[in-house]
Amino acid sequence: MFKRVLVANRGEIAVRVIRALRGMGIPSVAVYSKEDQDSLHGRLAEERVCIGEGSSRNSYLNMDTLITVAKNTGCDAIHPGYGFLSENAQFAEKCRENDICFIGPSPEVIDGMGNKSQARAKMREAGVPVVPGSLKALYDVKEALEEAKAMGFPVMIKASSGGGGKGMRECYSEGDFENEFLTAQRESANAFSDDAMYLEKLILEPRHVEVQIMGDSFGNVIALGERDCSIQRNHQKLVEESPSPIVTAESRKAMMEAAVNAAKAVSYVGAGTIEFIVDQEGKFYFMEMNTRIQVEHGVTELVTDTDLVIEQIRVCAGEPLSMKQEEVLLRGHAIECRINAEIPEKNFMPSPGTITALHLPGGNGVRVDTAIYTGYKIPMEYDSMIAKVLVHGKDRQEAIRKMKGALEEMLVLGVETNLDFQYKIMQSESFVEGKVDTGFIERFTLGGK
Amino acid sequence: MFKRVLVANRGEIAVRVIRALRGMGIPSVAVYSKEDQDSLHGRLAEERVCIGEGSSRNSYLNMDTLITVAKNTGCDAIHPGYGFLSENAQFAEKCRENDICFIGPSPEVIDGMGNKSQARAKMREAGVPVVPGSLKALYDVKEALEEAKAMGFPVMIKASSGGGGKGMRECYSEGDFENEFLTAQRESANAFSDDAMYLEKLILEPRHVEVQIMGDSFGNVIALGERDCSIQRNHQKLVEESPSPIVTAESRKAMMEAAVNAAKAVSYVGAGTIEFIVDQEGKFYFMEMNTRIQVEHGVTELVTDTDLVIEQIRVCAGEPLSMKQEEVLLRGHAIECRINAEIPEKNFMPSPGTITALHLPGGNGVRVDTAIYTGYKIPMEYDSMIAKVLVHGKDRQEAIRKMKGALEEMLVLGVETNLDFQYKIMQSESFVEGKVDTGFIERFTLGGK
Repeated sequence: MFKRVLVANRGEIAVRVIRALRGMGIPSVAVYSKEDQDSLHGRLAEERVCIGEGSSRNSYLNMDTLITVAKNTGCDAIHPGYGFLSENAQFAEKCRENDICFIGPSPEVIDGMGNKSQARAKMREAGVPVVPGSLKALYDVKEALEEAKAMGFPVMIKASSGGGGKGMRECYSEGDFENEFLTAQRESANAFSDDAMYLEKLILEPRHVEVQIMGDSFGNVIALGERDCSIQRNHQKLVEESPSPIVTAESRKAMMEAAVNAAKAVSYVGAGTIEFIVDQEGKFYFMEMNTRIQVEHGVTELVTDTDLVIEQIRVCAGEPLSMKQEEVLLRGHAIECRINAEIPEKNFMPSPGTITALHLPGGNGVRVDTAIYTGYKIPMEYDSMIAKVLVHGKDRQEAIRKMKGALEEMLVLGVETNLDFQYKIMQSESFVEGKVDTGFIERFTLGGK
Repeated sequence: MFKRVLVANRGEIAVRVIRALRGMGIPSVAVYSKEDQDSLHGRLAEERVCIGEGSSRNSYLNMDTLITVAKNTGCDAIHPGYGFLSENAQFAEKCRENDICFIGPSPEVIDGMGNKSQARAKMREAGVPVVPGSLKALYDVKEALEEAKAMGFPVMIKASSGGGGKGMRECYSEGDFENEFLTAQRESANAFSDDAMYLEKLILEPRHVEVQIMGDSFGNVIALGERDCSIQRNHQKLVEESPSPIVTAESRKAMMEAAVNAAKAVSYVGAGTIEFIVDQEGKFYFMEMNTRIQVEHGVTELVTDTDLVIEQIRVCAGEPLSMKQEEVLLRGHAIECRINAEIPEKNFMPSPGTITALHLPGGNGVRVDTAIYTGYKIPMEYDSMIAKVLVHGKDRQEAIRKMKGALEEMLVLGVETNLDFQYKIMQSESFVEGKVDTGFIERFTLGGK
């Protein structure tokens, strides 16, 4: 097992990892930027080292500094948390070159999954359902139309080199196709100097459902049920739950099998997530794989009674998985609400500041992961998420009631938060009935139920 | 189900019950003494009513006031928590007379179990092992000696009307018997005007192990594993864990069966605990039954993934148990440390005062049940327990490591606490090896390991 682990992150996930290391009896080294000098993660670790000032580029993203600190403090592993360098193949490679274990999959796997079209091709090969789409680049509108007709409308027209929504058009009928395709292609040529296009079936009112997997270096992979993360604002998840209210036992089995196959296809080691898009008929399609621990891993821990971070560290240290697939039992229902220092009414504008009073909920089936405390100054430089409130109940309705109780109880003074907004989501008709898709928040903020 | 429930308690258990009621969607009414006017339980309930000032007798123990408040606020049930009126048959009777459900067993059952010798007789009838002892009152020293020889030394000589250690003598050999018996008998005659004595086998280096049971009004009773509560100071539990490190699977099965039989013998409804004394060979004997939820119920919740307070409320409202015995699964290991505002070095002298800073541990597998907050003034009038820190790990060693991490992380300023003392227990050789008996703390404070 590792002798000492550097935690290359900040905030609640750094605290989470340090606590897991304590649970394993492994000393931890925290790194922090000058803005984070009063941070909880720095206080909880056995040792802490300041690694810079100002932007993340000069601190949490500075690979060479992190490697140097790890070596100087006698660390034989680095836990990257999520975000920052957690899916950076180059950093994983640098760790390897310096004989430091990067707690995550190999640089090759990170790289392979980071390239989205390559990942989709790999998944298709492994027999994992992928959103139907054209397999080769399309340049000619007539040829593209034939493909579109073959897969059926609506379709999404996308630029092969696309990103940030550029060169992207939704098309609902044959009659509109030529116009939309040519517009998107023109945009792509202008933006990316590339007029290669491709088509994908447009999934209407999609749900975001993901499967947690864990793999060891002996070729074993287990799936730990799914999480429904359909409630998102500006492509950021706000509420996550497990199990998903729309996934049937049969569908769960199929998704978990697909996820295990996907992970086995790349000899995956560590914690990972296979994200699926699910259509209104319950059909699921591979979207992408995240090669790290996720923000929302806690809901899976609550329903499976596991510690995913401890398990992740174990398997990355070369130990076999501590459980078999048939030992993974899903019990009850878990929900997570992300509490952000933000103003939902102003398009979720961040609201940094000093916390003048704080009361966190607690008790049976209530878990709070946070790095804030009374007197803590939330820096402007980083993410606005200040806490994750998680609950575990016998069933979904009990979990919703427990979450409402926890949100009512929680008190954060000094900054604006989305506590009330989250409470309203818990009360909303669509959520209570389990009928939300990724467009829910947009409709909800416009007065939808 | 109940429309509204009055919570006739204070502190963390009042908060615990209010949270459970929230999880069930039932409004709660808190009662509080003037000393508790800033208490958390008052703030969390839907409604709160001041019921007096000064001693508990004038507030939390005032039966008539509690009944009146319950009626005035439209409550159809009262949850008594633990302590105070929770095992008071007269109060349960008053509730019944006023058509208010007392959340606990019937007055008859409370009464029957409250009378210790009656309870022992009942248990013996039900086939539950009871500490071997004389069945009838002994007056004559010669007759008593024959009984003592028949059961084997050492024995405990006890006054039938005894209490508070009066009229009680340990006797290790035949030669000492006459002297010890006559001394005890004289003491009893002086103290209780009664020279009736009885004998019990003296269990050396005993462990305290108890079984959690839950019964419904359809005659179903389940047992939810055991808790080891051998670590006690002045007869008050300090550390509890589940499972017990000395209970084998076979022995667990036998204890659980005995506990279920004991509960069925009295048609028990609600949450209850059968306390056993376990000798160094692992033999267990019925000690007493607690007819209420216990302080340490949380360790059972963690290993069984249940909510005992919700279940207790459900069965007392007439619903059937939500699970069968075979559905009770014990997973991992849980430990609770009671955090008291006290000075262990001064014979655990209470240390009330105002909490000037507070940081509670959290994260996966860590639960804190408390009613304190920064700025809270711990009143002198009540119990010194200010928080329960609970952890759940894959196995006992992981649980101990998690507890050490949680205790290290917890910060309480403004009052003295036993946090360091608890940390030292977690590190002590005897505890780590699972080899403690009820005399551990006494030896430990004298420098034992």
